[in-house]
Amino acid sequence: MSVLESLLRIDCGSTAESAVSFISESVKDAKASGVVMGLSGGLDSAVCAALCARSCDTTAMMMPDSAVTPDSEMADAREVARVTGVHTKVTDIGPIVAEFAKGVAHNDASLGNVRARIRMAMLYNHANLENVLVAGTSDKSELLIGYFTKHGDGASDIAPIATLYKVQVREMAGHLGIPRNIIDKKSAPYLSNARTAEDEIGLTYEEIDPILYCMVDRGMDDAGTSDSTGIDSTKVAHVRRLYESSRHKRAGSAGATMK
Amino acid sequence: MSVLESLLRIDCGSTAESAVSFISESVKDAKASGVVMGLSGGLDSAVCAALCARSCDTTAMMMPDSAVTPDSEMADAREVARVTGVHTKVTDIGPIVAEFAKGVAHNDASLGNVRARIRMAMLYNHANLENVLVAGTSDKSELLIGYFTKHGDGASDIAPIATLYKVQVREMAGHLGIPRNIIDKKSAPYLSNARTAEDEIGLTYEEIDPILYCMVDRGMDDAGTSDSTGIDSTKVAHVRRLYESSRHKRAGSAGATMK
Repeated sequence: MSVLESLLRIDCGSTAESAVSFISESVKDAKASGVVMGLSGGLDSAVCAALCARSCDTTAMMMPDSAVTPDSEMADAREVARVTGVHTKVTDIGPIVAEFAKGVAHNDASLGNVRARIRMAMLYNHANLENVLVAGTSDKSELLIGYFTKHGDGASDIAPIATLYKVQVREMAGHLGIPRNIIDKKSAPYLSNARTAEDEIGLTYEEIDPILYCMVDRGMDDAGTSDSTGIDSTKVAHVRRLYESSRHKRAGSAGATMK
Repeated sequence: MSVLESLLRIDCGSTAESAVSFISESVKDAKASGVVMGLSGGLDSAVCAALCARSCDTTAMMMPDSAVTPDSEMADAREVARVTGVHTKVTDIGPIVAEFAKGVAHNDASLGNVRARIRMAMLYNHANLENVLVAGTSDKSELLIGYFTKHGDGASDIAPIATLYKVQVREMAGHLGIPRNIIDKKSAPYLSNARTAEDEIGLTYEEIDPILYCMVDRGMDDAGTSDSTGIDSTKVAHVRRLYESSRHKRAGSAGATMK
């Protein structure tokens, strides 16, 4: 194992325990009665579901849009619900998205973001009714490279896996008993097409994560990052651009204000 | 004029100039071609429209829901568009809200938040297509007492009037030539009913603003705030509760994470 691999390695037991405490404390502090989260069939929401289920009463909403969500994802989501024991609610957002698209100009990318935002609105609608917190399912890799919809899937009250890189979430998933096919499949947002995240970004998370670790957690410059990771400098520069250009997505929710 | 009134008083000319520079610089830095914002017929969006129009190409979207938006608000919004010279787009969100409500349990309050979030999704859909920034219309008073929908009207790329208290926005409106009837009418969100903001909160902005100024900008405790403003201590305590309990709404957009 390289030095870097060992730095990105986590103690799954104690990390899971911290996350469970964080979720429980957040719910208690907010005088809420549990959490609600979106369950997609992907890795991140599976791990989030397992952690939330260990912490408090958890409702997982499955919100497919039949226009773009493969049936296989719904089957995986149901399997995660079964092994984690979360309550489920299924709502097809297709008709809402269609109604939205009818009234305004749009394209594939903008409509993908609309889907993420309608899901957010749906989670908060449930949260308002049931006095629960919205748990976001973004991981640290996605948050740092901006691979999420601002005020959509990136919007929540608490973000239980926001401190874990994708490769760490994968390790955690094994520890939490998430089915192997969900751990091994490539991450894909299914917001508008079936491309995987890594295809779209052009790098694997085995490259992205050590780069981000050196760049963000250790504050190294590009040359140092490339040296330490042994990863090509053009890839490092690519991640730096993603990181810098997505800064606004991680800012305060009201947006930038005058200094 | 009391000491406090004079502290809350702004130089409208130089404040407007700073806001215009901030908007222009933000647009330039983001390599965007202008801004899009929601225009409701209320005071805040009127001032925001006037400032944006002086800064860059501005599209103001009017997004009524015929179920709750009074015709008089649309007339006021049109008048603001006329005097400020912004481009307008009108989209009725009623059918989208109705489609949303069909599929899930909801109540008046939760559906009010859904309206704010659908408007946000609509602004970002336009922003995606036209490469413009979303300008939020929340003022400092609303942001500090939590009088906005999280990830809804409180969500934007830039927040041009987030540094101005409501009473200052009102002063600015006069300077910017906003029609008197818009300046003088009581603020109302029209998310789910026709109550004014001040009725709902139980305090006037002439009380809220000096309290917030002492409490937040000057860091005074409740006794000091009550002394300095001459406002009853129960009202001060009420504002403190609103300020503290809405802290989570002003946090990073991903939500709370483990420390």
